[in-house]
Amino acid sequence: MSDKVSLAQKFSLFHEQWQPKIVARLNDYDVMVVRLEGEFVWHSHAETDDFFFVVEGELDIELRDRTVTLEAGELFVVPKGVEHRPVARKGEVKLLLIEPQGTPNTGDKRTAVTKVDL
Amino acid sequence: MSDKVSLAQKFSLFHEQWQPKIVARLNDYDVMVVRLEGEFVWHSHAETDDFFFVVEGELDIELRDRTVTLEAGELFVVPKGVEHRPVARKGEVKLLLIEPQGTPNTGDKRTAVTKVDL
Repeated sequence: MSDKVSLAQKFSLFHEQWQPKIVARLNDYDVMVVRLEGEFVWHSHAETDDFFFVVEGELDIELRDRTVTLEAGELFVVPKGVEHRPVARKGEVKLLLIEPQGTPNTGDKRTAVTKVDL
Repeated sequence: MSDKVSLAQKFSLFHEQWQPKIVARLNDYDVMVVRLEGEFVWHSHAETDDFFFVVEGELDIELRDRTVTLEAGELFVVPKGVEHRPVARKGEVKLLLIEPQGTPNTGDKRTAVTKVDL
């Protein structure tokens, strides 16, 4: 059986950015940590909502009609099909992400990074 | 569309314990906050894993063969079908929980509390 997950300990294990690392599974969902800095691409997920929780730093989730700014201890669920672009403007952000297994991070399997176990 | 969720702000809205409050939805999962103190009942969920993330305080998740102690910033997923008992021995604990909608918190619809929107 899996053990508990300390987010601080998991973040200490890597420093690369934009590479989600799977730290736990919840049914058919991946629970992931990732470090981001700068701009991601505009994308949407046709099949699923997208869960963001900020562990450290500040993240703008740009939507076509507004921007949701998240600080540590704040979460946001981007609804299925809604275009969004995560942007970390003020330095690196540490995030907890939860998505169904196999969800491409760019919304497109051709451009998505492979999510790896940590 | 729903707005962002600040955990600190959500916890400021209530003080009752053992009553999960729904703060967001992720597909067919409820994202909830709850305050706990003392012992819960032994139970299991035949249909789903059970996600616990400690926001503040210390939580023992007792399993039949060991105890997983979680502090702030730590998470644990109790696998489907595994008996467990959450116990907050050192004062109140604030938790973030994620479960499929309709999951009874006691594992039994007859004894479960109703999860309410916050």
